[in-house]
Amino acid sequence: MITAGIIGATGYAGAELVRLLLGHREVEIKWYGSRSYIDEKYGKVYGNMFQLVEDTCLDDNIEELAKQVDVIFTATPQGFLAGVLTEEILQNTKVVDLSADYRLKNVQVYESWYKIEHKSPQFLEEAVYGLCEVNREKVKRARLVANPGCYTTCSILTAYPLVKEGLIDPNTLIVDAKSGTSGAGRGAKLPNLFCEVNENMKAYGVASHRHTPEIEEQLGYAAGEQVTINFTPHLVPMNRGILATEYASLKKIVQADGTESFPTDSQIRAAYEKYYKDEYFIRILEEGVCPETKWVEGSNFVDIGFQIDERTGRVILMGAIDNLVKGAAGQAVQNMNLLFGLPEQEGLQIVPMFP
Amino acid sequence: MITAGIIGATGYAGAELVRLLLGHREVEIKWYGSRSYIDEKYGKVYGNMFQLVEDTCLDDNIEELAKQVDVIFTATPQGFLAGVLTEEILQNTKVVDLSADYRLKNVQVYESWYKIEHKSPQFLEEAVYGLCEVNREKVKRARLVANPGCYTTCSILTAYPLVKEGLIDPNTLIVDAKSGTSGAGRGAKLPNLFCEVNENMKAYGVASHRHTPEIEEQLGYAAGEQVTINFTPHLVPMNRGILATEYASLKKIVQADGTESFPTDSQIRAAYEKYYKDEYFIRILEEGVCPETKWVEGSNFVDIGFQIDERTGRVILMGAIDNLVKGAAGQAVQNMNLLFGLPEQEGLQIVPMFP
Amino acid sequence: MITAGIIGATGYAGAELVRLLLGHREVEIKWYGSRSYIDEKYGKVYGNMFQLVEDTCLDDNIEELAKQVDVIFTATPQGFLAGVLTEEILQNTKVVDLSADYRLKNVQVYESWYKIEHKSPQFLEEAVYGLCEVNREKVKRARLVANPGCYTTCSILTAYPLVKEGLIDPNTLIVDAKSGTSGAGRGAKLPNLFCEVNENMKAYGVASHRHTPEIEEQLGYAAGEQVTINFTPHLVPMNRGILATEYASLKKIVQADGTESFPTDSQIRAAYEKYYKDEYFIRILEEGVCPETKWVEGSNFVDIGFQIDERTGRVILMGAIDNLVKGAAGQAVQNMNLLFGLPEQEGLQIVPMFP
Amino acid sequence: MITAGIIGATGYAGAELVRLLLGHREVEIKWYGSRSYIDEKYGKVYGNMFQLVEDTCLDDNIEELAKQVDVIFTATPQGFLAGVLTEEILQNTKVVDLSADYRLKNVQVYESWYKIEHKSPQFLEEAVYGLCEVNREKVKRARLVANPGCYTTCSILTAYPLVKEGLIDPNTLIVDAKSGTSGAGRGAKLPNLFCEVNENMKAYGVASHRHTPEIEEQLGYAAGEQVTINFTPHLVPMNRGILATEYASLKKIVQADGTESFPTDSQIRAAYEKYYKDEYFIRILEEGVCPETKWVEGSNFVDIGFQIDERTGRVILMGAIDNLVKGAAGQAVQNMNLLFGLPEQEGLQIVPMFP
Repeated sequence: MITAGIIGATGYAGAELVRLLLGHREVEIKWYGSRSYIDEKYGKVYGNMFQLVEDTCLDDNIEELAKQVDVIFTATPQGFLAGVLTEEILQNTKVVDLSADYRLKNVQVYESWYKIEHKSPQFLEEAVYGLCEVNREKVKRARLVANPGCYTTCSILTAYPLVKEGLIDPNTLIVDAKSGTSGAGRGAKLPNLFCEVNENMKAYGVASHRHTPEIEEQLGYAAGEQVTINFTPHLVPMNRGILATEYASLKKIVQADGTESFPTDSQIRAAYEKYYKDEYFIRILEEGVCPETKWVEGSNFVDIGFQIDERTGRVILMGAIDNLVKGAAGQAVQNMNLLFGLPEQEGLQIVPMFP
Repeated sequence: MITAGIIGATGYAGAELVRLLLGHREVEIKWYGSRSYIDEKYGKVYGNMFQLVEDTCLDDNIEELAKQVDVIFTATPQGFLAGVLTEEILQNTKVVDLSADYRLKNVQVYESWYKIEHKSPQFLEEAVYGLCEVNREKVKRARLVANPGCYTTCSILTAYPLVKEGLIDPNTLIVDAKSGTSGAGRGAKLPNLFCEVNENMKAYGVASHRHTPEIEEQLGYAAGEQVTINFTPHLVPMNRGILATEYASLKKIVQADGTESFPTDSQIRAAYEKYYKDEYFIRILEEGVCPETKWVEGSNFVDIGFQIDERTGRVILMGAIDNLVKGAAGQAVQNMNLLFGLPEQEGLQIVPMFP
Repeated sequence: MITAGIIGATGYAGAELVRLLLGHREVEIKWYGSRSYIDEKYGKVYGNMFQLVEDTCLDDNIEELAKQVDVIFTATPQGFLAGVLTEEILQNTKVVDLSADYRLKNVQVYESWYKIEHKSPQFLEEAVYGLCEVNREKVKRARLVANPGCYTTCSILTAYPLVKEGLIDPNTLIVDAKSGTSGAGRGAKLPNLFCEVNENMKAYGVASHRHTPEIEEQLGYAAGEQVTINFTPHLVPMNRGILATEYASLKKIVQADGTESFPTDSQIRAAYEKYYKDEYFIRILEEGVCPETKWVEGSNFVDIGFQIDERTGRVILMGAIDNLVKGAAGQAVQNMNLLFGLPEQEGLQIVPMFP
Repeated sequence: MITAGIIGATGYAGAELVRLLLGHREVEIKWYGSRSYIDEKYGKVYGNMFQLVEDTCLDDNIEELAKQVDVIFTATPQGFLAGVLTEEILQNTKVVDLSADYRLKNVQVYESWYKIEHKSPQFLEEAVYGLCEVNREKVKRARLVANPGCYTTCSILTAYPLVKEGLIDPNTLIVDAKSGTSGAGRGAKLPNLFCEVNENMKAYGVASHRHTPEIEEQLGYAAGEQVTINFTPHLVPMNRGILATEYASLKKIVQADGTESFPTDSQIRAAYEKYYKDEYFIRILEEGVCPETKWVEGSNFVDIGFQIDERTGRVILMGAIDNLVKGAAGQAVQNMNLLFGLPEQEGLQIVPMFP
């Protein structure tokens, strides 16, 4: 039995980790960390957990925790883990960090987008970016996993094979992403009140959202060159779900007969198949089918569809995930499974809930 | 491995059965029956099932099906099963009926509330009302289980111990119930359109809803007398969840000192404990806590809270369920587990999803 | 032109006052009071008002304000107005108070339900309870109007004629009320976050909600005796709207032939007609029609339906309002119209918005 | 008093016309046309209109109607008006068509995108595209107004000044649009059921939506050249509102000092001011403010914001409208005001409703 501790267990991502780990046969949660609810029963903070979790919330002493558990999940604000992580902790335990602290390799990029100083850049090199379908082998050998962001997981996986295969020009990529409101966290802020979000829709963080450099870095590795994109997040009146609609210009490729032309529908599909054929959590939808966020709700799936527009020479890619599962806690569990040599799907074979 | 067939697999209750049975280790679905989608892939009718169910939908030949599977679930309109059920079918298989055909013992009551003729009243006597927490032993020996209605499951279980113990006057019972819209089914009807339901709320079926006699019959057994109640359902702009708010006058009881007085808070609680202490799926909330439908979403739990109003001598009971799970498919699986001697929680240990 | 000041202009009720008064031909708003947003542009606090309101928010100096405007609306927390109101203010201006400070005549009842000391009980006698359809003539002569609560407006108007005419036993009255979330105000509190309210439903304030004594007092006047009722509010995932479902035992009345029996459908309807026939804002729906909150959205209407249940001898009453309009700002404007001798519908002839 | 007839009065756009015209001082509705509800009371089809409209629905005899009223609104399926319009009708009355029949000047484009034959192409030349802010003078002299589509109104007005001024390359334009569900109409179709739309989001009509050529044609006029764009609509779980997020590459312009560079923030703003400064219904938001659909709900406003992304050389434009008002019925009324020489804002000075 793997023992786990969660720091930040009372945020939405932390609570989703609890939900998933309670259904995981190989893990026992030993520590429900929460600064805001110390000594309160976890089942009182989250009524859905009543009688399912009898523990009370504990303060976030990560050094002590590292000695007690096999893995620590940090579902904490940016800067927290970077401020407390030590070599000793990493010698005692594995860490899966759901914050952005170790996602970007370049500390200047981190500090310029997040507007905070990075307190432990010495671990940036070692940290593995935990996008399982891309970095599976590296994750298996890691001590510190930087769990990808919600928007980024969806945005990258949707475009990755086409960038990797050179079928689109990555610098023409525009990601128009829409997210349910749980992505905004459980903080009591006016813009997240029911009456402000319901029956409403807006863009935010336009040309400045912090997930932008994360997408650019990862797609840059795939492209083999630096990539600059547009990323625009939107807030949608629903609890869960991210839909990323992505636009990119097709690149002409050399066809079998030696001529150059735009990739066909089946060539696009073949690229997806090449990378995702054996990926349980990625479902390439049938021709003409557009993904719906509800089809992945509660699950770790990524649903992907696409449509070529011959009139403009662009391809429209669409990816859908549950932001709290594949976009946070689910991918964290998937990473944990890799870290401990468990079957990758363990605890994650959840049938999406509809309606 | 138990083999199962579902007739009416493409309605919301049928689809929820599929979701639950896919996560059940002892069952294999052999037949996805659906008149409306014959020969279509199930994973196309429900996009969430894409790649999880590869079967196509079949017509509803129940006689043939009875020879092939161990259990048949009928998630069909009222009158369907009553019109086709035969002794031969029941000799070949177990049947869990999610419709109302065998819930009411009195055929006249059925025909007067449902406005249709009952075609096989000869099975009414044998059918067991599958409210597991009340009729567990009978279910175990049954061939035909009448799976309770969604409103009724919630309404009855919330009041049952107090009626049984004589703490309330059952004829003063008023059940004001609120349901998510999945209870209205997947039929393409104008009143169920998004724009008609969203940002809206209404009562319907006032003083005439068909679940009324079902509640009355079952609480009548508990009371040992005929019971007449008010039941008012309401449509709420949410997908899932039923909240029943119930009002009843307390009955004076003889206290330890020989005087007569109204039951106290702890006496009410003791009554709930007496009947539900060992019931995994029933959670009696702590004092002052009101159940929320979101706390049971996706799960088979029934959450119950109560509050005595000394000013009026009434007690207010509140029960919450997921209408598609404990109110339909979950209870059907619970009944199936009982029928086949499986652990009652098998396939149903689902942590409610929040948010 | 009547000049008006609003204290508490940046809460939801205050903002609704602004919306309605901007469409009122006889009123000009001179003062947008808001402690939280002093010196901020009102059109920035509420983006819908951009370019429609150019004023900035001001502090709440009620004495000064009273000298400048003809009418002050206070959309403030309980206790505010009671703490600052003086005879001098009332000599300078009219006051319509949207808080509960002057709704209850009995100061002990106020203090026991609201848990705060009443600082100016000397005005309780003079204050007129501004339920226009019931107290129209008194309002016309008032200096201080206590604008009724949202739940209470709906609950009282729905039952009033039947209580007044002795057709129901008022002490059997049970009001099960459901409200959209704007009733909870614009405070940044965790329970009002989108993800906590959406796809969820719950009762709250069971047997303890502060609108209870207000309903009891007003229905007590109608009944000519003290009345004790049950009132249970619920939170519904929608922005606006209150639906009150009310249950009461019918009282036998002497019929034309000298016998005693329960009132008929047409006798109930006649009672409603007697009191509301000429009331523009009250719509008695046709037989068998249940009110829907969406049908009154954005308007000052009260829609009422009813259904006798002969099986139980009870009648079920249903009333629907927009909580921010007839339940707050709309009724405040209606009261203002009465105070100043304007046509009662001025500024309030709004067609409900659907969908 | 202008007399008006509505053909298709019971769809959502038709019902919105009724709502707006009831609040218009110069118009009287004489004809509520509805094939589906002939002889039914309009106030029964739409409960919000109970007691506000006493008329019953009539069949759609447009020739007869043309003799009786000053203006006919057709809120009908594509192809209806083209199939019945005659010169005689246009000699008797003005027609504002909310369908797409006369929006595209090129009949081949119409037939290829709409897949139906155009039955009266002889009126295409005469019909005026009723985008009031662009074609005001032409509308004033028209007999037949083609009221623009909902997506198109929002998409075009948001980009128009920048295209017209040559600040962006129109062929790089990508419009990612999100719409509330009322845009899908009141037809009882499975994909529009509450449980299918709620808590869900998807793209549809990707690279094939019929509003694409309409946007292209109008922006083509502004650009002075043929324009080809990407347009992707999405369905959002809300009743009303369209948000268009638009991406385009900036074009270098000659600056005052003779050098060439990308337009600045203030140059973009100046372009908007040039065309919209005096437009009451268009609100250019302050720097850094993103439009929210809720801020225009129920009103005829178009809210526009923008953000330059210097990293990619693109500008992100955001426009928000209420699809049923400025996107349909409101603009139709605005067109009617122009046709009859009324103040353009008459009946449309509606304060947006929030929340």
